[in-house]
Amino acid sequence: MEGNMKVAVMNGIGKMGYTERPIPVPKDDEVLVKLEYVGICGSDMHYYEMGRIGDYVVEPPFVLGHEPGGTVVEVGKNVTHLKVGDRVALEPGKTCGKCKFCREGKYNLCPDVVFFATPPVDGVFQEYVAHEAALCFKLPDNVSTLEGALIEPLAVGFHAANQGGAHIGQKAVVFGAGCIGLVSMMALKASGVSEVYVVDIMQKRLDKAMELGADGVINSKDVDVLEKAKELTDGEGFDLAIETAGTEITTNQAIQVVRKGSNIVLVGYGKTGMMNMMMSLALDKEITFKTVFRYRHIYPMAIDAVAQGKVNLKGIATHIFDFDDIQNAMDRSINEKAEIVKAVVKIAK
Amino acid sequence: MEGNMKVAVMNGIGKMGYTERPIPVPKDDEVLVKLEYVGICGSDMHYYEMGRIGDYVVEPPFVLGHEPGGTVVEVGKNVTHLKVGDRVALEPGKTCGKCKFCREGKYNLCPDVVFFATPPVDGVFQEYVAHEAALCFKLPDNVSTLEGALIEPLAVGFHAANQGGAHIGQKAVVFGAGCIGLVSMMALKASGVSEVYVVDIMQKRLDKAMELGADGVINSKDVDVLEKAKELTDGEGFDLAIETAGTEITTNQAIQVVRKGSNIVLVGYGKTGMMNMMMSLALDKEITFKTVFRYRHIYPMAIDAVAQGKVNLKGIATHIFDFDDIQNAMDRSINEKAEIVKAVVKIAK
Amino acid sequence: MEGNMKVAVMNGIGKMGYTERPIPVPKDDEVLVKLEYVGICGSDMHYYEMGRIGDYVVEPPFVLGHEPGGTVVEVGKNVTHLKVGDRVALEPGKTCGKCKFCREGKYNLCPDVVFFATPPVDGVFQEYVAHEAALCFKLPDNVSTLEGALIEPLAVGFHAANQGGAHIGQKAVVFGAGCIGLVSMMALKASGVSEVYVVDIMQKRLDKAMELGADGVINSKDVDVLEKAKELTDGEGFDLAIETAGTEITTNQAIQVVRKGSNIVLVGYGKTGMMNMMMSLALDKEITFKTVFRYRHIYPMAIDAVAQGKVNLKGIATHIFDFDDIQNAMDRSINEKAEIVKAVVKIAK
Amino acid sequence: MEGNMKVAVMNGIGKMGYTERPIPVPKDDEVLVKLEYVGICGSDMHYYEMGRIGDYVVEPPFVLGHEPGGTVVEVGKNVTHLKVGDRVALEPGKTCGKCKFCREGKYNLCPDVVFFATPPVDGVFQEYVAHEAALCFKLPDNVSTLEGALIEPLAVGFHAANQGGAHIGQKAVVFGAGCIGLVSMMALKASGVSEVYVVDIMQKRLDKAMELGADGVINSKDVDVLEKAKELTDGEGFDLAIETAGTEITTNQAIQVVRKGSNIVLVGYGKTGMMNMMMSLALDKEITFKTVFRYRHIYPMAIDAVAQGKVNLKGIATHIFDFDDIQNAMDRSINEKAEIVKAVVKIAK
Repeated sequence: MEGNMKVAVMNGIGKMGYTERPIPVPKDDEVLVKLEYVGICGSDMHYYEMGRIGDYVVEPPFVLGHEPGGTVVEVGKNVTHLKVGDRVALEPGKTCGKCKFCREGKYNLCPDVVFFATPPVDGVFQEYVAHEAALCFKLPDNVSTLEGALIEPLAVGFHAANQGGAHIGQKAVVFGAGCIGLVSMMALKASGVSEVYVVDIMQKRLDKAMELGADGVINSKDVDVLEKAKELTDGEGFDLAIETAGTEITTNQAIQVVRKGSNIVLVGYGKTGMMNMMMSLALDKEITFKTVFRYRHIYPMAIDAVAQGKVNLKGIATHIFDFDDIQNAMDRSINEKAEIVKAVVKIAK
Repeated sequence: MEGNMKVAVMNGIGKMGYTERPIPVPKDDEVLVKLEYVGICGSDMHYYEMGRIGDYVVEPPFVLGHEPGGTVVEVGKNVTHLKVGDRVALEPGKTCGKCKFCREGKYNLCPDVVFFATPPVDGVFQEYVAHEAALCFKLPDNVSTLEGALIEPLAVGFHAANQGGAHIGQKAVVFGAGCIGLVSMMALKASGVSEVYVVDIMQKRLDKAMELGADGVINSKDVDVLEKAKELTDGEGFDLAIETAGTEITTNQAIQVVRKGSNIVLVGYGKTGMMNMMMSLALDKEITFKTVFRYRHIYPMAIDAVAQGKVNLKGIATHIFDFDDIQNAMDRSINEKAEIVKAVVKIAK
Repeated sequence: MEGNMKVAVMNGIGKMGYTERPIPVPKDDEVLVKLEYVGICGSDMHYYEMGRIGDYVVEPPFVLGHEPGGTVVEVGKNVTHLKVGDRVALEPGKTCGKCKFCREGKYNLCPDVVFFATPPVDGVFQEYVAHEAALCFKLPDNVSTLEGALIEPLAVGFHAANQGGAHIGQKAVVFGAGCIGLVSMMALKASGVSEVYVVDIMQKRLDKAMELGADGVINSKDVDVLEKAKELTDGEGFDLAIETAGTEITTNQAIQVVRKGSNIVLVGYGKTGMMNMMMSLALDKEITFKTVFRYRHIYPMAIDAVAQGKVNLKGIATHIFDFDDIQNAMDRSINEKAEIVKAVVKIAK
Repeated sequence: MEGNMKVAVMNGIGKMGYTERPIPVPKDDEVLVKLEYVGICGSDMHYYEMGRIGDYVVEPPFVLGHEPGGTVVEVGKNVTHLKVGDRVALEPGKTCGKCKFCREGKYNLCPDVVFFATPPVDGVFQEYVAHEAALCFKLPDNVSTLEGALIEPLAVGFHAANQGGAHIGQKAVVFGAGCIGLVSMMALKASGVSEVYVVDIMQKRLDKAMELGADGVINSKDVDVLEKAKELTDGEGFDLAIETAGTEITTNQAIQVVRKGSNIVLVGYGKTGMMNMMMSLALDKEITFKTVFRYRHIYPMAIDAVAQGKVNLKGIATHIFDFDDIQNAMDRSINEKAEIVKAVVKIAK
């Protein structure tokens, strides 16, 4: 497909703009995807506000966005499992396939990964992208490209559930009812966990959690989390906790409310890089702390879960913005955090 | 066996004494053991110095000591696997066998455990003890009762190695070269780990580590641990770390020197109960933190490892004190920590 | 509770009768349960027809039945978690709690288990039973004692699913649509498995499978199982198979229809004790064969799954017989195998 | 490196010969290796005798041999971890890195593997080979290229030990004292297994097993294996069995001599593809059967184990043949199976 495409770029801290670039040409093992929806992730907001995350520094003009869904419009000559017209979710990280981590199946730890919207690699707030076909997963008829875009955050939730060893019969608690907390809760439910409770201090988010299937919520501004946890678990403690808020308060609540021998999955990053934790109590309880860096081997399962109705994925997309309105989309995502669970940019349809 | 026995008691903080008590009568499923050696553990020293550990408060007179080895002198009528004259190592914790933890095989987490020298349960600095026969493990001919006493700390080392998933082909690092650091190092080697390095700031302890089989040591007073770790692992990081020092410095060194996707086993308790940890780095590396509370299912394997010469267990017992000298044994263990890796009280022989 | 109770006894091969025995007195850690429903298991039928299973030989009069549900009518003095009036499902095997297997959490392998209706231990086709309280699991309000009785076979299904590592995203196949095949299918679905297919040669049973939630069925009398499996899995093979029919044909079909690296769970016993298996193919595919002996740690989870509506357990009870009609219940269960998925004896209500 | 090289070819069943072919040119990510030793595997013998294994049919002239060790003589331009002069062991299977199996870390199951000496892919009984650098593992100074060649069969032994979950404290038994039985025994010992016994009917092979480190052997021609197993395990049964003989007799002995809940690893292929097994007993014991197809992630660990002296790998190479003598090497390997544990062809030195 020849011609130019429209690309949204970050021109500096807090400044979005547009440019034109040539529509990319897919290589033999790639497909060209016309993008329809791209979600706005917390890391996009962070780059937009701060210009960097740790050692990753934005050099403008830079393209944000790594949660894409779209339709295949061109197919590389070695690609057999996709055809023009297939709607797909795109896994945003291309890995080397040869390093120790890739060979052992932990490709999310590949040191040579090329990941959308992670400087200096551009993201996908743009009309088209050429991407490795093996990372483009076909959506069934009953899964939309909006949901396709949201598979990316859902994959984090499922990886958290997997890392925690989630299974039927457990009672679990999720700290934080932002996007990642909500997808974690839904992933736990879809994985068979019997009861999932969500803790937050914003009632609106907790209402959302209930709407999306939580068995109960705890507003820790009003309620003593430790007491409530005892009550909900007959004094035994939760079998599993997922921490997505990234605060010391919630991390230490997690340590206090789980039962002995259980797993706590840490997903949320703190502000300073450090976390002051009740480790003596954790040792007494022989707790295992699992951590989450992105995800691996999740896309097919996550798409499947949505297709089967086990996850109400559409429900997290509280705000849809037009592509032309991207400055507004970024600004409001930051300024109205309590309101906006998840903003998605509609590139085309 | 009728009559009285000599019992060493803690009469107050820093005050040891002796008393006489009746020799206990073994129940049907118990054996009576004449004790020969009982090790002095860090927790014994802590009770002796502070009068408490957390919520466990010593009410004098209290008997310390939970690392016993001895010889069976009487056998309860239901006991079939032991006979008079058998030399045994005694696992010090009696568990309920009925709770969720016991039924699932994690008996070390049993809330109803009765554990020697954990208030209000007396320990075994005394001439005899009646103990559940199932917790008394027969020593082969080539394992002494001194080694039998030391199986208890070795069990912690093996549990740490197990929790970390230690196996052949790995390069591991142990932080802290005290008794638990050393038994952890030896357990790693016995479990097949290819290279084990030990980090401490006391050269004497590090010399001990080399004597007991470490592949190398790092004196972090003199050497940059992070640089040295890179050098020892060709820049890849260690596959496994066991932290026994209980400090923030070493815990954060562990996070920095392990490779992505690896396990860190936390064994050492900090002074304050809190630990300020580099958790963002840990999440980036998707590290798993396992913790250790005592041990489970270890005694037979640990005795076996000693019998086969895989562990130089005698080597950690740097100081042997007579039973009559127990005040001195306790005082010196505390005052000469740099010198005394492990003190053992010789009750009888 | 004083007085006598009615007990159904097997007086010889094919001969049921009744007798009176004293109502048992619960020990301190037991409860007395008034039984309401007891399921008829394949092993009950086998004892009834053959007088033995392997080395277990019936000495008449013998009480069959080991799938009980009822209501607590008396409570031993050490029992705290149950009270009179609680409705319960009874796990039929009392284990020693001390052997290597019990201590390691695999209590189903305890050599000293005392299991209802396994000679010489009597079963529970009778009005009352005194049973260890820890093995009596309280039913929530929305789970009936009929379902309570059926928790026992469901536990086998869940143990099979666990042994197979069932999880979301998988496609699984179950061979055999008898009671155990059906509960296995339901356990797989409840564990999150995405698609479950059932293979049998009796259409009626397959219709039942569909009614109870299978995603599809294969009547292997009419359809080529290997071809159909390819079609259902896009040529990749199933991720997991559970074999409950106990025949060489189905076992070898399982080996042929699973993908490389997958698990096959063997539940069904063959007629001769031997099974001639395509092991070279199994090695080429690096298949793991897990086996199932009863279950462990399942009752709370299984009750929970029923309470949450994840398993339509009532649906397997196709025939309910009155206690007075037990001869008929046994005879018809044997003679109308194709019709009767599961017969349950209503002791009282 | 220009010029021709000498290549040994199979010209038909039982007929070896030589030809000349151009020395291959390494691609950018390959190295050129001057081969020094190549082992003769059972599969080489089978192709040589039968002309096929299952669907893999030899089209002469065909090059056998897939167990190579040699020295790097040329390096592709993208290769950084190897240089000219490095001595290496070559893992013989090149996998796609993209399929589901590769991505999940089970690359040994890759359907698109290109494996030396598996028709139609030629093997390496030749002077040089160009091979993917990532599959060439540098040997430490104290590991010879003869041992480098033998890493391939040792890798099977270690994969078997891994599949079985081998660990310290276990008592294990290996059926068959051929090459694979012996490397399995050595891998178990190196993995920390406490006692390993070997069963065979040829005393010479059993003597070899003792020489290489077995804790004991059972000549099942003279001794009742079941009785002996009871004696060696105090009636409890072995914790782990590895079956390498590929017979029904030994497979069923394995089922009989292991304890309940244990793992049996099946490595040996039977003659007919079928295996008639005591599956009812296996179910009663809840045995898990793991199988072995080649290996994965083993080379670095196996080289390490040899370097550390944990495995006496040289000891299995009972016969070394000159490259000029390859007809004889093949013929004698087949005709003197009882004598020749492992023949190796010395290509150059």
